[in-house]
Formats: sequence, structure tokens, C-alpha cells
Amino acid sequence: MAAQLARHAGETGGRALVWNRTREKADAHAREFGSEAAELPEVTGANVIFSCLPTSAEVDEVLTALAGQLRPGTVWVDCTSGRPDAARRQAAGLAASGVAFLDAPVSGGPGGAQAGTLAVMVGGDAAVLERVRGDLAFAGKVVHVGETGSGFAVKAINNTLMAVNMWAAGEGLAALARTGVDLHAALEVINAGSGRSYPTETLIPQRVLTREFPLTFQLGLLAKDAGIAAEVVQGAGASAPVLMQVAALYRAAAHTVGAEADYSAALKLVEQLNGTEIK
Amino acid sequence: MAAQLARHAGETGGRALVWNRTREKADAHAREFGSEAAELPEVTGANVIFSCLPTSAEVDEVLTALAGQLRPGTVWVDCTSGRPDAARRQAAGLAASGVAFLDAPVSGGPGGAQAGTLAVMVGGDAAVLERVRGDLAFAGKVVHVGETGSGFAVKAINNTLMAVNMWAAGEGLAALARTGVDLHAALEVINAGSGRSYPTETLIPQRVLTREFPLTFQLGLLAKDAGIAAEVVQGAGASAPVLMQVAALYRAAAHTVGAEADYSAALKLVEQLNGTEIK
Amino acid sequence: MAAQLARHAGETGGRALVWNRTREKADAHAREFGSEAAELPEVTGANVIFSCLPTSAEVDEVLTALAGQLRPGTVWVDCTSGRPDAARRQAAGLAASGVAFLDAPVSGGPGGAQAGTLAVMVGGDAAVLERVRGDLAFAGKVVHVGETGSGFAVKAINNTLMAVNMWAAGEGLAALARTGVDLHAALEVINAGSGRSYPTETLIPQRVLTREFPLTFQLGLLAKDAGIAAEVVQGAGASAPVLMQVAALYRAAAHTVGAEADYSAALKLVEQLNGTEIK
Amino acid sequence: MAAQLARHAGETGGRALVWNRTREKADAHAREFGSEAAELPEVTGANVIFSCLPTSAEVDEVLTALAGQLRPGTVWVDCTSGRPDAARRQAAGLAASGVAFLDAPVSGGPGGAQAGTLAVMVGGDAAVLERVRGDLAFAGKVVHVGETGSGFAVKAINNTLMAVNMWAAGEGLAALARTGVDLHAALEVINAGSGRSYPTETLIPQRVLTREFPLTFQLGLLAKDAGIAAEVVQGAGASAPVLMQVAALYRAAAHTVGAEADYSAALKLVEQLNGTEIK
Repeated sequence: MAAQLARHAGETGGRALVWNRTREKADAHAREFGSEAAELPEVTGANVIFSCLPTSAEVDEVLTALAGQLRPGTVWVDCTSGRPDAARRQAAGLAASGVAFLDAPVSGGPGGAQAGTLAVMVGGDAAVLERVRGDLAFAGKVVHVGETGSGFAVKAINNTLMAVNMWAAGEGLAALARTGVDLHAALEVINAGSGRSYPTETLIPQRVLTREFPLTFQLGLLAKDAGIAAEVVQGAGASAPVLMQVAALYRAAAHTVGAEADYSAALKLVEQLNGTEIK
Repeated sequence: MAAQLARHAGETGGRALVWNRTREKADAHAREFGSEAAELPEVTGANVIFSCLPTSAEVDEVLTALAGQLRPGTVWVDCTSGRPDAARRQAAGLAASGVAFLDAPVSGGPGGAQAGTLAVMVGGDAAVLERVRGDLAFAGKVVHVGETGSGFAVKAINNTLMAVNMWAAGEGLAALARTGVDLHAALEVINAGSGRSYPTETLIPQRVLTREFPLTFQLGLLAKDAGIAAEVVQGAGASAPVLMQVAALYRAAAHTVGAEADYSAALKLVEQLNGTEIK
Repeated sequence: MAAQLARHAGETGGRALVWNRTREKADAHAREFGSEAAELPEVTGANVIFSCLPTSAEVDEVLTALAGQLRPGTVWVDCTSGRPDAARRQAAGLAASGVAFLDAPVSGGPGGAQAGTLAVMVGGDAAVLERVRGDLAFAGKVVHVGETGSGFAVKAINNTLMAVNMWAAGEGLAALARTGVDLHAALEVINAGSGRSYPTETLIPQRVLTREFPLTFQLGLLAKDAGIAAEVVQGAGASAPVLMQVAALYRAAAHTVGAEADYSAALKLVEQLNGTEIK
Repeated sequence: MAAQLARHAGETGGRALVWNRTREKADAHAREFGSEAAELPEVTGANVIFSCLPTSAEVDEVLTALAGQLRPGTVWVDCTSGRPDAARRQAAGLAASGVAFLDAPVSGGPGGAQAGTLAVMVGGDAAVLERVRGDLAFAGKVVHVGETGSGFAVKAINNTLMAVNMWAAGEGLAALARTGVDLHAALEVINAGSGRSYPTETLIPQRVLTREFPLTFQLGLLAKDAGIAAEVVQGAGASAPVLMQVAALYRAAAHTVGAEADYSAALKLVEQLNGTEIK
């Protein structure tokens, strides 16, 4: 994403400062993509600041480090998969300094980031979004979904739907495996039929049936996202028994399979619960 | 499907007899598609017999009516979304008369049937399938998935995955609706992201957001299919807490929304449970 | 139970024949309790035949072994925790020979059996129950709950409610354990409050907190009972998302903890899913 | 509870001031039980202050109204069924003024309150509890369960276990009702067996089978308590699929049956989902 921003800055006569907790990473980025490595306080000179961190807690740390240094008129675009209530608190805190905040998480994975085709779901003031829309150089699709926090809420629900669809497919395949059905054949017809979803089309054939479970996104972070979805549901006074159940099952998978495993490895818990393998 | 079979028969110099409990329907089919309307006993002259009925119970009725009249060497292809244990019983019964049985349910909907592109998931003897593969004129994809009953098992799981994916998406959208998120925008990013599935891409935008719920497949039949999936899971000694919960919720939807409604109307129960609308 | 029947026979001038697949067990019983060890065909001389076996499948085996040998007027009382549909089939088969069938499972455990205070839930003809009520010497409470199969249905639901109550308590205690709450203290107030149930009052303090999990009833049999409850629910066209989910979780526990463990060891799976111990 | 405190004050030479948002209620209490009606600021003269309000939000309102007026050395005992995180925040705020805070919710219902036999589950400093233990005149049992917030956590789990046990029993009885089983008979054996719980022994026979659903505790408040339990689970990094599912179902019941109904009326949603009545 930062590489796309640096490319965009180069094309438009702007500058792209890059900060990372590990200075060497910023330096390497500057060398490779033409950005400028910066110390944290220097980023306050930017018109638009992008953050993309593991959780809202790390965003809070950066905001605390920059307290009192941000300039009025700045727009802060947080691409973290964060918590809606944190967004509302952060936006209110920044507004007191004249800084606008957009929660703008992305979907599309490492591939989409490199190709500049990420989907961005944006919460916050629509007029602020228009001011910075041209700078979202990493985006293939930008959608304004509602008020502050809405971007994070939609992202959490999106990821949890993926989690539900993957888990349910795992359960179904495990049951079929126990009856002797060929799972490659079963997936072939499911993907030609109405049972198909992103996990049946990509994750399960590529990561689970192959037994590779390559690490691209940590299971613990998906469990965190499902937990955010549970908070969204609770905070909205909504009733979502399936999402709540599945959020619990991914938390369980993080305990049993390991939070550092790839998220597709959640199906290893499904396998344990069924005494079989999905292969 | 029968129209495709009649067309195929015409092209290959064969005949296509059509039987329906309502003779007028068979006559109309004959006039429109060039098949031949037949009384039930006449179908016993066919080399391949296709059945496609609401449930395995109706297949049992037809088999009973034809008891003792089927000729050895006949292949019976049942395209019903039936029960695996019924398939095993029916296959065993027919085998005693020298008749082979394939459970061969289809996926793809009315559109796929008309276009001749249905996916067919076949359980039973692979050699028997090869004998009739050329006659599956309604199929775009034919996949042998395992022993007798496996086709029905895969079909039940496929439909239940669709049911899970639709229900979960309904829960997520209902929660987002309660927080003021624009659902069209939310679906746009979900469908560009990892949360996408067949229901988010087609059913919910076309049937639910529009409030149309057009009847193409009865909710009661989907609840039945989810019940078959529950039987498959139980019979396999498998553990599928999500599939089981969702099977229960569709049974509930059939009670509250009505078994005769379109299956997409299951989300009306999600709406009631959330005190909101998905629109 | 057989000891109580032998004592009753002694008091009323009757005889109690005892059959077991292992003759030595029948001989030992005869020596200890004054019953008479018998070969299977001899039991056909009895007016009332009691069976108490692991599952309905073993009852079927015994019935097959006795086919054609039972006398009209005999009453068969099956105390197995069996399947309602098996009861209906068995009752119909026996009725053809003039033998009446009552499904009469018991609750109360080994202690209740020794004390002669078991609760018996009876399905079948109420008039037949009255004929044998005096012979239910092992019962502290006999309740007619409905037609054939109803006794098994109520037993399956009873055991599944216990399973739900135990599992939910395990989940709650595991969560509290993770927050540092003293579980003995928590159970003390729960059992003085509205959260109490049979498992919180007896099983969890005696078997789980003590880490003893003494084997009195196999986890695999409880998982089987929950599966029967799922069949009852499905067969009734009922919607029971919680019972269905919990049935799945006990099947999972049988896979992960072991079907031969004590049923209280199901909470070991709860512990694994939570990365903590309930102690 | 306040009546017990007034009686205790009278016996020990102390005073019991009573404040209520509606002054007339305080006056009436004073006349009936010998307490003294007070304006809110007057309660700051007490050594021990008891609060018992619908939710932590109302406790916050009272604390705000008394900000800066509380005396060091005072002990605040909050008997609300509150939120653990609110307790931690409130305790920290009061500690700054030298006021100790105990979260001390109760269980036992109106009957237990009148009889002075409530169970009290206390979170906070054990030494502080010892200072006020003699003043907990409404308690039959006082149990220290852990640090600040632990009392609220245990209360939320206790109430949610009750909610699970009631819902599951409702599901089981609805399924049995659909098969024609006599529910009074079924409950009789369940309550003599292992399936028994507080709801099967009291709530369902007294409130549901009678179709009376008398209002003693609002369904909306139980849904709130289950939501607190979900927060406890999430905050603890625990995995509780059954508790989470049931929390969602009670939220749904509050939407469909009405938040102001008696909590036992949650089973009216079970009835709707099953197309039957529990009677």
C-alpha cells in the first residue's frame, strides 16, 4: 500500500514519508519504492496521514506519541482493521485538534495491495473522503459505508462472513470425508453450485486440501476481527447467533491450533472435532 | 431437464417418454418439446429412467407403483434432492431386479436447467455412470463423488452451505442496518472482498434488498435439505455445530415465515429476530 | 435393577430369571441376589421380560435371537436408552406375535438403581403399563409419558438437557477462571442462585474440580443420547438450535477426549477450547 | 433489601437513610420499615452506601451527582447486576477520593430479599468486605469471588446459565410437545432425573405451563445480563459458543416478545420457532 502511495506521490509531484517502528524497514522501503524514511514527528507535516496497524491499540499508541503535534486540516486515514468504538473515540480526540479521521480498512489481501486494487470501506464524513479520494492510490474500489466507525464495522462483518463460510465448509467437508466422499470432487460441484463462497473457491483448495496452510494472515487476527464483529452486534442491540457462535469457535481455534498459524488452519480444529482430515 | 433429454433423443435417434402425475403436463411437454407423453408402466421400456421429485418419499411411491415391472439392465437416475439412506435402500431394492441406481441430484437452478449447464453430483457405481454419461443431456458438469448416496449427501451439504452463507450474511447485514450503515454499499465491498458468497452476490441483492422474495424454490424444501445434511452429519458420526444450528434456524423459518415462501424469505426471520429490515 | 427384581420376585412368590451375554455374570448374580441364571430361550417363559442394553441395536439382536419363540400375552419392558423409531418398529414387530412392548428407560444412576428409587419414563399402552406396574420393583417413580417411543424421547431430551447444562456451566466457569475468579466460590453462589442445575450441584464439584472424572457413564453413550435427541427434534419437525449445537459438541468431545471417558470429561474439551482448566 | 438494612440498623443502634429518585417511595419506605427518607447528598454521611439499580449506567449517574461529596473511608456496595468493566472504572474513580468499592450483586429473587436469605457474590478487596460483612443484613450467604468486577462477572454468568437452562428446556419440551408427549409428565421425570435445573423445577411449571408469565424480572434485563456475560467471555479471551448463541437468542426474544415481558416469556419465541405451545 505504501509503495502505491509513493508511486502516486511521484506521479503527482508530491512526497511520501514512510515511518515504521523499525527504522530499517522504512529505509528499505525508501530505497525500493522512492518514498522518504521519516521519524514519527515528521509525518505531522503531511496533509494526509495513513496508518495500517495490527489493532486499534497500536493506533492509540501512535496517536499518543503525536499528541499536540498534528496540524489542523490534516486528514488521518486509518486502514487498520480496527474497532468501531475506538474509531469514534479517536475521531473525537482528533477533531479537537482540527484533524479529520476516516476509518478506511481494506480487503483484497497482499495481492490486491500490490496490484493497487484493494477494496476500501470508509466510515466518516463523506466530504472529507472526497478531499482525499484521489490519494487512495492503493484502492481499486472506494465505498463510503456510513459514519465514523462504519468502515471498521463492515470490515469486521466481512471477515466474519468469510470465517463463517470457511468453517461451515470445513464442517461439511469433514462430514463428507467420514462417509468416503472424494473431497476434490465435492468441492468441484459445490463451486459449480450454490454452496460456493470465497473460501470454497480459493482458501480450501489452495491451503487446506494441499495441507500447506501458508501463513499470510494470522488466525489470531481473524479471531480478533470476529470478536470485533461480536462487539458490533452487541453494540447494535442485534441478534446474530451464528456469527456469535463462529466468533467463539475461532477464539477456540486460536487456543488449540495457535494464534500465529495461518487463518486457514482454523479448519484443523474442525478436523480434530471430527476425528478426520480435510484432504 | 426433460426438454434437454427430448432434444438429445431427437438428435441421437432415440425416444424420450415423459410421465407426470398430471397427464396434461406430460401432454403439454410432448407438444412443446417433442417428447412422448406416457403412462407410468410404459417407462419401463426405457434403457434409462430419470426421476426428479420433491423428496425421496415420492420416489418410493413411484418405485412401489413399478414394482416387478422394471427390466434387468435398466439404469435409474434419480435427480431428486433425496436422502442418502433412502438411496442405499432403493439401490439395494432395484439391484434385486437387475436395475442399477444412481443418485444424481443437480445444482444450478431453473436457469441452468434451461441452458443445459446443470452441475450433476453422482453417487453409485462409476461404471454405470459411464454407461449413461452421454444421456445426461441437461448437464454442464458431471462429477462422480462416491458410492450410492454420496450424490445426495453432497447435494444436501451444498444446499446447507448456501443456507449458512445466506443466514450469516443476513445476520451481519441486520446488525449493520441497526448501526446505520448503507447495506447496498456494504454488500458492494463484501462482494469485492473475502466475505462474498453466492447469496451475497445474487440472492440478497436480487431478492432481499428488493423486498421481492420471488418464489423459485420453497423454503420448506431448503429446510428439508438442511435436515438431510443433519442426518448425513449424524450418520457419519461427524460434529458440525454450525450446520446443525443453521438447520434448526431454517426449520424455524419454515414455521414462522411459511414453508411455501421462497427460500430467500428465511431472512425475514432474521429481520424479526433483529427488529429491523434488510433493505 | 435386576437385584431389585429378584428381591421382588422372592417377596411375591415369583421367579426372576437372569440372562447375560456372559454366563458367568448371570451365575454371579444368581448367587448374590437369589435370581436364576438362564439361557436366552428360557426367558420366553416369563410373563414380563426386562431388557437394559447399551443401545437399540443390541435390543434388536436379542429380539432376532428370540424370533418366533415369544408367547402371546408377554410384556416386554425395554429399559435401554433407545431410539424412538426403533421402539415403534420393535413394538410393531412384537405386536404381530401378541407381545406388548413398553419403552421404559430410567434415570437416577447406579445409586438410584441400588436404592430402588429410579425414575421410569414409560411410552406405550397405558393399560399395559398398569398390568406390569407392580413389577417395576426398581422404580421410585413411574410416569407414563405417551405413546410407544415417548419414553425414549423423554430420556434422550432429559440427558441432553443435562448435557447442555453441564457444557454451559463449563463454558461459564472457564471464562471466569480466565479472569481469576475462584471457581469454588463461583459454584457456591451459582448453586445458591438461579444458575444451578444437576451438573453444577453434583457433577462439576465432584468430578471436574477434583480432576477425578471417575467413569460411571461413558461419554460416547451420552453423545449417542444427544444424537437421539437430535433425531427426535428432526423427526418432530421441531427447531432446537441449542440442543443441536450441543449434540454436535458432545460428538466432538467423544472424538477428542475419547468415547470411553466418563461423560464429565466432556468439559476437558471446553478446557482445551479455552486454554484453561476448570479447577 | 432496604427493609432488612433498616431492621439491622434498628437492632444495632445505627441509622438507615433511604434515597429513591421518586421521593414518595423513600417516604413510604421510611413509614413502613423505620428507615429515614433522605435527599441524595445526605447519603454521603453514611459509612456504607448501598446502590441497587437497573444497570451500571444508572450507577454512573448517581456517582456523577455525588462527585466530590463522598467522604474518605466510605464503602460503596453496589448490588446492581452491573458490568465488570464499569466496576473497575467506578472503583478506580472512587479510590481517588478514598472511597472503597465492592461489586456485590445478589441472587435469590424478591422472596430471598424479603426473607433476608439472598446470596451475595462480592468482587473487590477482601479486607473491605470484612469491614462491612456485618452490614449485609439482606444476605443469607456472602461469598468473596475475586477482584473488583468479579462479582458482576459471576452474576452475569449465573443469570446466563439460568437463561441457557431455561431455553434448552423450552426447546426440548417444544419438540416433545410436537410428538404428543404430555409435558407435565415429562417435567415430572426430568425433575426426578439428571435434566433438572432451576427453570425446570420452578419457572417452567409455574410460569410457562400455566401460561401466566407473571412479571417479576424483565426479559430485557436478562438479555442485558447475557450481553454482559458475552462481554466477560470476550474480555477474558474465552470461547463460549453456547453462551454466545443463547445471549443472541435472548436478544432476539426481547425484540420479538418484548423487552418488558417477564423473562420466562422468552419461551414464547421458542414456541414461535417451533409452531407449538409449551403447555
